Amino acid sequence: MTTVAAYAAPAPKAPLERTTIERRPVGAHDVLIDIKFAGICHSDIHQARDGWSEGIFPMVPGHEIAGVVTEVGPEVTKFSVGDRVGVGCMVDSCRECDNCKAGLEQYCTGGGPTLTYNDTDKQGEPTYGGYSENVVVNEDFVVRIPDGLELDVAAPLLCAGITTYSPLRHWGVGPGKKVAVVGLGGLGHVGVKIAHALGAEVTVLSQSLRKKDDGLRLGADHYYATSDPKTFEELAGTFDVILNTVSAPLDFAEYVSLLRTDGTLVNVGLPEEPVQITLQSMFGQRRSISSSGIGGIAETQEMLDFCAEHGVGAEIELIGAEEINDAYERVTASDVRYRFVIDTATI
Amino acid sequence: MTTVAAYAAPAPKAPLERTTIERRPVGAHDVLIDIKFAGICHSDIHQARDGWSEGIFPMVPGHEIAGVVTEVGPEVTKFSVGDRVGVGCMVDSCRECDNCKAGLEQYCTGGGPTLTYNDTDKQGEPTYGGYSENVVVNEDFVVRIPDGLELDVAAPLLCAGITTYSPLRHWGVGPGKKVAVVGLGGLGHVGVKIAHALGAEVTVLSQSLRKKDDGLRLGADHYYATSDPKTFEELAGTFDVILNTVSAPLDFAEYVSLLRTDGTLVNVGLPEEPVQITLQSMFGQRRSISSSGIGGIAETQEMLDFCAEHGVGAEIELIGAEEINDAYERVTASDVRYRFVIDTATI
Repeated sequence: MTTVAAYAAPAPKAPLERTTIERRPVGAHDVLIDIKFAGICHSDIHQARDGWSEGIFPMVPGHEIAGVVTEVGPEVTKFSVGDRVGVGCMVDSCRECDNCKAGLEQYCTGGGPTLTYNDTDKQGEPTYGGYSENVVVNEDFVVRIPDGLELDVAAPLLCAGITTYSPLRHWGVGPGKKVAVVGLGGLGHVGVKIAHALGAEVTVLSQSLRKKDDGLRLGADHYYATSDPKTFEELAGTFDVILNTVSAPLDFAEYVSLLRTDGTLVNVGLPEEPVQITLQSMFGQRRSISSSGIGGIAETQEMLDFCAEHGVGAEIELIGAEEINDAYERVTASDVRYRFVIDTATI
Repeated sequence: MTTVAAYAAPAPKAPLERTTIERRPVGAHDVLIDIKFAGICHSDIHQARDGWSEGIFPMVPGHEIAGVVTEVGPEVTKFSVGDRVGVGCMVDSCRECDNCKAGLEQYCTGGGPTLTYNDTDKQGEPTYGGYSENVVVNEDFVVRIPDGLELDVAAPLLCAGITTYSPLRHWGVGPGKKVAVVGLGGLGHVGVKIAHALGAEVTVLSQSLRKKDDGLRLGADHYYATSDPKTFEELAGTFDVILNTVSAPLDFAEYVSLLRTDGTLVNVGLPEEPVQITLQSMFGQRRSISSSGIGGIAETQEMLDFCAEHGVGAEIELIGAEEINDAYERVTASDVRYRFVIDTATI
């Protein structure tokens, strides 16, 4: 075991503070990663504040990790010391169920994937995330960050990137398709960039036109305010895919009405409350409502390669570790363009 | 114009009674069909009793029509006198929108299809359905009933058959797939037969085990009571497709939990009230909720050919026209196995 510095929430809703945690020894198939940057995901805040379920405390959040390999176990074949790598939301899975074998580790039915933090691993030890100096991860859950991508703007791709890339690909977004991205935040702004790079016609649906210039600069072709009822009249029956990145409950019937025949409203945000859906609002055009969670490991690598090829990185605001608690407040207030990334050298 | 006998609801909620209506002259592209049998669909009752929206009265319901061609217009190329034919829920559409051109006339975006009854045609005249001696229909909205299918058991296929066949095909039901059919009524019993004929492993989910013997005889491999909470434990994560034929609101989260990764809950029933959905209940497995309405004309022909090939017809109870009002009461009380069909010779 190695003792390393980290930022942790000692208890639910408590501010994060500097502490130390133990990392396991580097096993035969493990790599030790010197963490350079860690993104702050909205779900970090949810979990540190215990909004979703009982958390494991102290909690070291962070599942948008970019760094450099500094040691490899004797059986490691995929990585060498010095490689630029990333770790996302998962660090293991059962590897035996149909989903794991099909590269859908995120939907592992053998007990679910082992999450990067706020979970326990197969040895029963708690997992600690990326707000830390380093991390030990089985090589099968590590991905390569291509040379064309800077580590700081790559970090948020490990969650925000794959969470938007996977459904956009799964539902066939590309040339000739019209896609709407609901919400221009941490997830949404990456979704816009990726959808644009995939060749689709991209519309942002945001509460107001406040970020319109940004949206167009990031690759959107159109930008509409959802606070304007005319938006829903004008865009009725338009989209093949609507990617909803907003966690707050929406009037789903309104958004479904914007879909074309066979269109899908995909939710990657996670409302905590039940949503009222009038089935008749979906009827007549074979529209669907679905959801998607991150992506598999191979697909995460594919996403990073795609982003490097198309020059897609997150728009970030780099902070020191001592600013994490302030950053949490600002994320909650939607006051970030568009992702906070912690320079972990400051831990 | 020709005056023909029919059964009509003179006003909302009034009992149906014998009357006469006018049928238009046989136009260049029209066929005149001597109606032999007309199925009673639950939606006939909804509309005659004005449950869904303002109806057009007097109303002659009936969109499950089987008969024989007795006259063809001079430009008709598809049918000849003596042909055995069917008419379903639509008798026209705009024919110009992308959906019409793609054979999805049921999702016509050029004003929607012209419904077989309770609608107005392009000339502004009300349409009258199949509870009648004959009907004049443009040949493009007429389908051929193969010799292997008796007209009486074929009639309900024009709505119940295509309403279940289309989504089962669209969502890839076939060998190696597990499908559940919710509700063993007019739609559900045909859905079970078709899903079985498509080669899938079929499970019926019904409120009780009352119709279990029937379900197994019709082609189901398994039969479960949804009133038993153990059903939802035992079948969690099982189905590729769940075809919900029940119009009453269900606890959707429970049913979604029965889907596998990438599974779809397809609704062909039409609840009138909003449905509460907790999005988190769908999360983790990329499950979808969707809906489907009837099918296109070419697909309706495909369905009839498939049913003839596989010996699939509706299970019917043949009645005289004077029994229509009693039959409505029995359908409302779920007291029919499984479809009433009117012998229109009794009109």
